[in-house]
Amino acid sequence: MTRERLSLYDTTLRDGQQTHGVQFSTPEKLRIAKALDDLGIDYIEGGWPGANPTDSAFFTEVPGTRATMTAFGMTKRAGRSAENDDVLAAVLDADTPAVCLVGKTHDFHVATALGITLDENLEAIGASMAHVAAKGREALFDAEHFFDGYKANPNYAVTCLKTALEAGARWVVLCDTNGGTLPGEIGRIVAEVIAAGIPGDHVGIHTHNDTETAVAGSLAAVLAGARQIQGTLNGLGERCGNASLTSLIPTLLLKEPFASRFETGIARDALEGLTRTARMLDDILNRVPLKQQPYVGSSAFAHKAGLHASAILKDPATYEHIDPAAVGNRRIIPMSNQAGLSNLRKRLAEAGLEVEDKNPALPRILERIKTREAEGYSYDTAQASFELLAREELGLLPDFFEVKRYRVTVERRKNKRDRMVSLSEAVVVIKMDGEKRMSVSDSMDEDGSDRGPVNALAKALAKDLGRYQEQIDDMRLVDFKVRITQGGTEAVTRVIIDSEDGKGRLWSTVGVSANIVDASFEALLDAVRWKLIRDGQGA
Amino acid sequence: MTRERLSLYDTTLRDGQQTHGVQFSTPEKLRIAKALDDLGIDYIEGGWPGANPTDSAFFTEVPGTRATMTAFGMTKRAGRSAENDDVLAAVLDADTPAVCLVGKTHDFHVATALGITLDENLEAIGASMAHVAAKGREALFDAEHFFDGYKANPNYAVTCLKTALEAGARWVVLCDTNGGTLPGEIGRIVAEVIAAGIPGDHVGIHTHNDTETAVAGSLAAVLAGARQIQGTLNGLGERCGNASLTSLIPTLLLKEPFASRFETGIARDALEGLTRTARMLDDILNRVPLKQQPYVGSSAFAHKAGLHASAILKDPATYEHIDPAAVGNRRIIPMSNQAGLSNLRKRLAEAGLEVEDKNPALPRILERIKTREAEGYSYDTAQASFELLAREELGLLPDFFEVKRYRVTVERRKNKRDRMVSLSEAVVVIKMDGEKRMSVSDSMDEDGSDRGPVNALAKALAKDLGRYQEQIDDMRLVDFKVRITQGGTEAVTRVIIDSEDGKGRLWSTVGVSANIVDASFEALLDAVRWKLIRDGQGA
Repeated sequence: MTRERLSLYDTTLRDGQQTHGVQFSTPEKLRIAKALDDLGIDYIEGGWPGANPTDSAFFTEVPGTRATMTAFGMTKRAGRSAENDDVLAAVLDADTPAVCLVGKTHDFHVATALGITLDENLEAIGASMAHVAAKGREALFDAEHFFDGYKANPNYAVTCLKTALEAGARWVVLCDTNGGTLPGEIGRIVAEVIAAGIPGDHVGIHTHNDTETAVAGSLAAVLAGARQIQGTLNGLGERCGNASLTSLIPTLLLKEPFASRFETGIARDALEGLTRTARMLDDILNRVPLKQQPYVGSSAFAHKAGLHASAILKDPATYEHIDPAAVGNRRIIPMSNQAGLSNLRKRLAEAGLEVEDKNPALPRILERIKTREAEGYSYDTAQASFELLAREELGLLPDFFEVKRYRVTVERRKNKRDRMVSLSEAVVVIKMDGEKRMSVSDSMDEDGSDRGPVNALAKALAKDLGRYQEQIDDMRLVDFKVRITQGGTEAVTRVIIDSEDGKGRLWSTVGVSANIVDASFEALLDAVRWKLIRDGQGA
Repeated sequence: MTRERLSLYDTTLRDGQQTHGVQFSTPEKLRIAKALDDLGIDYIEGGWPGANPTDSAFFTEVPGTRATMTAFGMTKRAGRSAENDDVLAAVLDADTPAVCLVGKTHDFHVATALGITLDENLEAIGASMAHVAAKGREALFDAEHFFDGYKANPNYAVTCLKTALEAGARWVVLCDTNGGTLPGEIGRIVAEVIAAGIPGDHVGIHTHNDTETAVAGSLAAVLAGARQIQGTLNGLGERCGNASLTSLIPTLLLKEPFASRFETGIARDALEGLTRTARMLDDILNRVPLKQQPYVGSSAFAHKAGLHASAILKDPATYEHIDPAAVGNRRIIPMSNQAGLSNLRKRLAEAGLEVEDKNPALPRILERIKTREAEGYSYDTAQASFELLAREELGLLPDFFEVKRYRVTVERRKNKRDRMVSLSEAVVVIKMDGEKRMSVSDSMDEDGSDRGPVNALAKALAKDLGRYQEQIDDMRLVDFKVRITQGGTEAVTRVIIDSEDGKGRLWSTVGVSANIVDASFEALLDAVRWKLIRDGQGA
């Protein structure tokens, strides 16, 4: 059976940026665009060129993508031609192969928000779409408030869509802009629109999650005949967010009736990267990943109920609607039981530590992880710190050196040119082979800019490690994440440091303390110790 | 028109407790039960008596409720009578007016998990329901894996339901236990079950959010004829959670076709307490409330897009599907680089700054916000720093004092008892009224624990502010958020500080620097300056 093609349109970089508290930098937008392209999304909406410097810079810097790069804007304003609208010109100047323009289809908004006649609005839609198409770009019409408009005046709303298509739009996107339309009504209206003569393979759906039904609304629209879904990674977006592509994609690929009827641009092996992609976005936003997030959350396949956990051991299909590996996720069975121990052994084996299942260190490791997680540590990503903890319990952690003390200062004062500058300086004292070694470093980068106390500490620590020096010299701190969390009853700081070496190895370590510098130092130390182990150094 | 009665059944205290990482104490369960009762829920499922000490204690201690208190358990085991099943006896011993028992309806599970014949399973269901009813309790049958069972063997699945009803069950609850059934299929199967002779006003629906469609699945079941919805507050529950009653309740009360067709036990004034109830649960769980949560999240009515914000000012109905006050929530118009001038003026007015729309400072303020956001600042939440920036452009920022320099040290070393301890110390020098003032502070809290360099700086800065001292003395740092972001091409640290004063005012400020301590100091300074302005201090 031939499957119909469903088009996936991502607006994380535009509508996703409307999320309260979210502000992407240009390099972050570039990273997200690459991830979307690798995933196999059909259209990437990159932002509104001309609306802000970040969006404009993105379109200048973004390299070629397999996905159709799309610029967002609005239909031309009344009282001028499409050719003479400077806002529209800025959008076209981004030179993207596709352009999506938002316009009105709700008679109430045409009158109150724009203050023009219904016919003038039709003219604005038609002229804008024709202008985009005449420039050789693919034109999309983003029909704002379509469902409310259709309920108020179905003929006018549909006429807006027809005008856009006749003027050359490839897609008309039905937007539930305020998120108030429930899935049943979305399905009914999409079917009526198609019955009124708008071809389903030119109809897109754009929902918001204000009633927690954005995903279901998108599915209802597809069942009614729409063939493009607009959404965002992790459901970012204005107010309660857009429809989450992170939830929609696995449903479309893995579940009926969608899997048999439709084809998307997402390959099954790209789907296995979905959990990683979702976590990358959380990382960029420095958000705690939502444990309960469908498909990709760390609890999505966690089986806590005793009845469930034992049935799962007999046959995972009993309590899992899909195989977690299909989306790059994994099953979690609480640490406290037998299955917890086998999970632990599996994780140790991944670190090259083969441990017999009767080894008495195993329950001790589980216990220490529990205690430390209660203090604020997290070993989900800090695999290197997990390995060091396990090695310590297993008696496999060499005693490389001891840190006797450190001191770091941060100062802000006037420099010679009477400008306020900041400066950090660190002293680290270690003891190795019975001998004390003292190192000092400031925090300046090549341009003479202060990179802060953690940078100074990292450099001082790595400056004089005697016979380990050669192993440490190719180490580099690549990322540094800080989260305020709850350790017991007090707020503490959790620092996760990502390091890299000359062999291309990447590893993550964790430190926790009420003192952010001290938490960072703990993570730095772990990073150095892990590197020495990997390079095969005994004590 | 008479509206049909919809029954709402809450399982926060049972299925909600299956959430990974959630463990309620008995006092917490009592608080939640009271909140549910105040809200007007029909049934409160309190737990599984006999399964753990907390659940048993809850049923002993819970006072009388208007809601029907319900104990959960499972149907009697094969090979013994209902009267002789000790697990079932423990459930009945809780002496609740209603009892809900889970049992199998999927032939595959009957054979593999229970290892009994299909007829033996029917006998177990019938005998258990009859036993509960004979004790004068209201009996509910929780049909585990019903949808998968129905797809595999519809006759058997429906026969299980009929057996339960004929034996005296008031409700049969169709559970989508592994969360894999999509709303369309739920609607179809519920309709078929009712057509097969199970009265809709005896049918309940219990969904899970594994495909992010639990709410929509519940609504589909109601439209197909089911008359009880089971769910949890904030969608707590095993794996991705249960259907969220926090989302379902406002939809049922406020939105069509539900509002006109159905009646629930929730009064409109109780609905206005919904946001507070949702936050109370987050408090108990010590969770950061989900900003994007439908209806009750702090971003649920936040209008960030410039186009939206200006339309909202004309008429809130343009971008809001309900009045936020109906659920006890409120509208937010944040500042951001997406915002237009009207949004800016509204925000200034909220800060007590009435500015004419022709004031030339307005575009300068917008421009500076855009530039600073490109550097890594964020003014969505840091309202106080936004106000200071605006005041500076408007010429309304007094020159309270100048910071000449500061220095902070962090040390880790051995203390007198030969234990490694960390310690921070800060010196701040300011100039005020032509005079230099130098203050010093360490970072120790009342228990002698190091709270880190930012704490030391905050205390030193607030120690000697001369004639402003009185205003500063009631200031307190209540939260501190750090994220690494991209300012231009370099990674920088953004610090957001929340402060509070004796009058109960809460305000947020932002600082950005590659040096985390310096970023924090900038946010601290803003916090002090805002406080001085609010307390009416001139320079």
